[in-house]
Amino acid sequence: MEIRRASDPDWPALWPIWQSIVSAQETYMFDPFTAPEAARRMWLADPPAETWVATAGAAIVGTYQLKPNGKGPGAHVANAGFMVAPAARNQGVGRLLAEHCMRRAREAGYLSMQFNAVVSTNTGAIALWRSLGFEIVGTVPQAYRHRTAGLVDIHVMWKALTQL
Amino acid sequence: MEIRRASDPDWPALWPIWQSIVSAQETYMFDPFTAPEAARRMWLADPPAETWVATAGAAIVGTYQLKPNGKGPGAHVANAGFMVAPAARNQGVGRLLAEHCMRRAREAGYLSMQFNAVVSTNTGAIALWRSLGFEIVGTVPQAYRHRTAGLVDIHVMWKALTQL
Repeated sequence: MEIRRASDPDWPALWPIWQSIVSAQETYMFDPFTAPEAARRMWLADPPAETWVATAGAAIVGTYQLKPNGKGPGAHVANAGFMVAPAARNQGVGRLLAEHCMRRAREAGYLSMQFNAVVSTNTGAIALWRSLGFEIVGTVPQAYRHRTAGLVDIHVMWKALTQL
Repeated sequence: MEIRRASDPDWPALWPIWQSIVSAQETYMFDPFTAPEAARRMWLADPPAETWVATAGAAIVGTYQLKPNGKGPGAHVANAGFMVAPAARNQGVGRLLAEHCMRRAREAGYLSMQFNAVVSTNTGAIALWRSLGFEIVGTVPQAYRHRTAGLVDIHVMWKALTQL
């Protein structure tokens, strides 16, 4: 597996992954009916956002986006989103992407990383983030309308990337 | 004091309030160097966002923006931002705007309201939200770079608007 910067020509391969994950309405707080062009503008956004892909041979098996969680006085906190192709799940792709992303975030000068809305039913992701040193610093009741589970809590998760 | 919907012709009066509050870098996570046009696009954004102003005579003394906190599976949670003109502080404008905003959010069908980044040094705002039934549901360490206090915590605050 190789991890490299994504660019616009990757979008046709990224879109089916993005679309299947977002339309499932189990993990992401994007509009499930987002059009491909609007999704591309978000996922392959301009700097300081940066997007990476994991490839196995010619196939894209995962992707992440790293960006500031806020502007101005919040720009020292990183935010990231991760997607693993459905066909490549449970093979450690998410962990490799996460480790790569934390390394990149430190290089880019971010002091910490914050996830704003980790869906509480997404136990695999929560276990992964915990194992990488993230902690739950907040829980918002019923803030996510899960397609099958209904209204469920979200967690705010956070990790220092440097000595604060 | 009257509270009415804001529209583009209000922007020349709103901009000095917005600019003084954002450039102070004590409460908001906007870029302190935001240009007026970009600020207008954010503060007077298209629906479902809505913006209101409080007026005293011809003067705008405060404003708030109400909008969904997330898209798709997060669109049932309201988010709001409030600004009181520096000359009109400590006269209850913020409380009146907040009460109005919660009423509007209920009318618009939101189930709860979430503030993502209440700066921990902003004790006046925290006391106001608490008195209106908001609770701190999370705290992110050192996520705000306060212009004079340095890196300070932010709180996630939340309130149910209906029986969840």
